[in-house]
Amino acid sequence: MSAIESWGETLRLLVELLGTGAFALSGLLEAARKKLDAVGVCVVAFLTAFGGGTLRDLLLDRRPFFWVQHVELLWAVMVLCVLAMRFMRQHHFEITEKAILLPDALGLGLFTATGVHLALNENMPLLVAVLMGLTTGVFGGVLRDMVCNEVPAAFRDHRPYAVCAFAGGWCYAGLWLLDIHGWIALVACVAVTAGLRIAAVWRGWELPAWQV
Amino acid sequence: MSAIESWGETLRLLVELLGTGAFALSGLLEAARKKLDAVGVCVVAFLTAFGGGTLRDLLLDRRPFFWVQHVELLWAVMVLCVLAMRFMRQHHFEITEKAILLPDALGLGLFTATGVHLALNENMPLLVAVLMGLTTGVFGGVLRDMVCNEVPAAFRDHRPYAVCAFAGGWCYAGLWLLDIHGWIALVACVAVTAGLRIAAVWRGWELPAWQV
Amino acid sequence: MSAIESWGETLRLLVELLGTGAFALSGLLEAARKKLDAVGVCVVAFLTAFGGGTLRDLLLDRRPFFWVQHVELLWAVMVLCVLAMRFMRQHHFEITEKAILLPDALGLGLFTATGVHLALNENMPLLVAVLMGLTTGVFGGVLRDMVCNEVPAAFRDHRPYAVCAFAGGWCYAGLWLLDIHGWIALVACVAVTAGLRIAAVWRGWELPAWQV
Repeated sequence: MSAIESWGETLRLLVELLGTGAFALSGLLEAARKKLDAVGVCVVAFLTAFGGGTLRDLLLDRRPFFWVQHVELLWAVMVLCVLAMRFMRQHHFEITEKAILLPDALGLGLFTATGVHLALNENMPLLVAVLMGLTTGVFGGVLRDMVCNEVPAAFRDHRPYAVCAFAGGWCYAGLWLLDIHGWIALVACVAVTAGLRIAAVWRGWELPAWQV
Repeated sequence: MSAIESWGETLRLLVELLGTGAFALSGLLEAARKKLDAVGVCVVAFLTAFGGGTLRDLLLDRRPFFWVQHVELLWAVMVLCVLAMRFMRQHHFEITEKAILLPDALGLGLFTATGVHLALNENMPLLVAVLMGLTTGVFGGVLRDMVCNEVPAAFRDHRPYAVCAFAGGWCYAGLWLLDIHGWIALVACVAVTAGLRIAAVWRGWELPAWQV
Repeated sequence: MSAIESWGETLRLLVELLGTGAFALSGLLEAARKKLDAVGVCVVAFLTAFGGGTLRDLLLDRRPFFWVQHVELLWAVMVLCVLAMRFMRQHHFEITEKAILLPDALGLGLFTATGVHLALNENMPLLVAVLMGLTTGVFGGVLRDMVCNEVPAAFRDHRPYAVCAFAGGWCYAGLWLLDIHGWIALVACVAVTAGLRIAAVWRGWELPAWQV
């Protein structure tokens, strides 16, 4: 492996950790708002962090799950839960929410790219592969909201989230069709997804509403 | 293939398309009522149309999913979502709801028969096969209601829906036991399920309530 | 098989039946409270009784499901539903709730032990195995509450339930590491889980709340 590839691999791992942490934190915040107990807080954090990738692996019939191969991820989220319950207070919530915007966007891009990649590797049609990318990136949050007895925020807040992942996913799939090298496609997908997401938050873009 | 079989196959395909469309439309109506955004509308339509069959395939460990083999179904539902959001307005809702009653009933029958057939083919016990038929026909709507944060209509509206599929499923399983040819069992299952469902709606039949 | 082993096997089967019945009854009570119709009552009872084990088997990719191998369990729960709807009235609810506390606690212990055992048999890491045990014991109730449109009681009522299973699961996993014979580990896991659970109910123990 060349120096640049090993550097890239480290970067990818870092983004994955940051993204997983951001997803878990968004679960923690939701659980705190719903006043769940310690068990609920941990389960919701786990579901948010690992739910999307687990659903993708179930649908693609892939075993072992990524969190079985990297069981240290489970330990990390568990430690994060304990630390949050010990040290995090109401007045930290708003700043946490702002602080996770960027890692969450990067994580969304990376998880989408991973999902598309794994599905294309199993010869899925392009549309299915993009939907698997979406599932990986978005369904952790959907499961979080379903368990917390809310209509999923991704489906009702009119802010682009899944749509950014959809665009990034098509990017990855298109480059794959052109036989363009994995790293370039990965960076392009993350850049498009995270770029769109950050632009959407910054400029206050809204999804078109159904004018019934 | 004889002329009558090819004609039958075309008819089966037509009912499948009609049923899938009716399920997707019922998801669209629910999403519009809950004021979901464009992403939510599409996801709920997809879940309603494909959720039951996907859950059945997960439980029976069948791959590839039917929507991977027939990816044009995914495109069709996506186009339906875009058209609905573009052209469908509040005053179309009531007539749509009435118009999908018949294709929904036929689809319920066909999907139930498909579920029972696939499960019996994998040597499942009769009761399990009938429950797989039920799952195929009914759980799309259940997932729709769960995502939309409602108690599933199929479980609380006291109108026979799953019960019709249950009767139709036992019909199919019984004929299978008697070694009666696939087409006859399929038609019988659809006829019983759809017939009961339509009679139930028409006559206003109600499930017995638990008089606690 | 020695006399003691055959006696043990009978006892295990008895606890399994009692536990499944207790889970199904807790589903029936919840369904009655939400005024579901006959279909909803049955589905919720099934989900509560079989949901946790089914989710575990899905995650571990085990087939056939335990309720396919023991289809008589499905019939038993169906008969239980019919009997409950026929004979159970409001004034039986409170006593039923008290009467199922003990079989529910024993069932929780047994199902946890089963989950841990099956996962360790497939060479899962210890933490994953314990989580699979938890899933088996707890997610039936979680699915029950999700379908009934409630935040799962296990995540918000501050009473130790999943935590007892967690402790019992680590017990089993620890004894497995020490190569201690299956029966001893099983009994230890059930004793720790059920003992903690019953002590928690009896003494009114509460989980620490997150003081946000």
